[in-house]
Amino acid sequence: MNRFPSALLERAVDEFSKLPGIGAKTAMRLVLHLLRQDTKAVEAFGNSIIRLRQEVKFCKVCHNISDNDTCEICSNPRRDHATVCVVENIQDVMAIENTQQYRGVYHVLGGVISPMDGIGPSDLQIASLVTRVQGGEVEEVILALNPTMEGDTTNFYLYRKLADTGVKISVIARGVAQNDELQYTDEVTLGRSIVNRTLFNVSI
Amino acid sequence: MNRFPSALLERAVDEFSKLPGIGAKTAMRLVLHLLRQDTKAVEAFGNSIIRLRQEVKFCKVCHNISDNDTCEICSNPRRDHATVCVVENIQDVMAIENTQQYRGVYHVLGGVISPMDGIGPSDLQIASLVTRVQGGEVEEVILALNPTMEGDTTNFYLYRKLADTGVKISVIARGVAQNDELQYTDEVTLGRSIVNRTLFNVSI
Repeated sequence: MNRFPSALLERAVDEFSKLPGIGAKTAMRLVLHLLRQDTKAVEAFGNSIIRLRQEVKFCKVCHNISDNDTCEICSNPRRDHATVCVVENIQDVMAIENTQQYRGVYHVLGGVISPMDGIGPSDLQIASLVTRVQGGEVEEVILALNPTMEGDTTNFYLYRKLADTGVKISVIARGVAQNDELQYTDEVTLGRSIVNRTLFNVSI
Repeated sequence: MNRFPSALLERAVDEFSKLPGIGAKTAMRLVLHLLRQDTKAVEAFGNSIIRLRQEVKFCKVCHNISDNDTCEICSNPRRDHATVCVVENIQDVMAIENTQQYRGVYHVLGGVISPMDGIGPSDLQIASLVTRVQGGEVEEVILALNPTMEGDTTNFYLYRKLADTGVKISVIARGVAQNDELQYTDEVTLGRSIVNRTLFNVSI
């Protein structure tokens, strides 16, 4: 509908509008912001994205994003390679790394099973997880998927696939979050936090 | 704080985070979205921005964005070059063009006077407007700035600067907007809409 005063402008706004959550007006605002920046800065912006897409690799062990064939975590001999934490995506790896509470390695599924979105087990890195566990070096698999219906479905599917290997399978604790108010916590979470209570420990 | 699994990824997220209104998490989401697209599509995205910044021009008459030295509107002989509509930015040109109610030409100030933001008259295309009007071809200047304090200040400044030239100076009508509810309309607008009432006209 809009008649753009410049074909170059229209093209750039069009490209930005393809990004998720970016509408036509926001795209216009972002493009006009870039137009006010130095040419060098805008070139750096554009090239950073192009280079990322052209050069980025995925770790052949855990499928995390990496600059090399094997990621920093998988190639670090000081990590515990017998413990594999299964996560949905790389943001989850970063979130867990930021806690500085985990010294094992990861396995990035690339999503969760979601029939509604047409995502089945074969779309995810599940076969490679099974092969990895069958390799014999893994002692424990920690399921750290999001506490949603899709996450639970995937947990259950992984549990069935891995049960035969004899590996120890655990799942991250669910309960009330730090600074939650109990009166506003949903029943499922609060109920589970009572059932799965742990012994009081001063160090926690 | 976040340790990125890839320097390329960190770089791209960093660049996206510099955009206004885009935080670190949104930047990550956008970059990961781009990573899932074809390399060709991502190259098209990056290059569209770089090309825009490198090649875009500003019309030497009205300062609108343009692919050429003179924009399509200013170089169109069928437009009324005696009527100049003064706007803040190119989005406003596009908005007025979309109404299909205006056949004159434009003058893009590039902002409004805003001492709070350190924007004075010399930061805007005001001198070039005065020169343009002094040229003698302009018969009417329509002030179409946003109805804010900054817009009003700029209107007043422009009025004083242009008063000597003898050009007709008008300002866009203020009043209740289409589909507004009167009971929720602010007093200034509603009051002005009564004071500045127009004769009832069936064609409107």
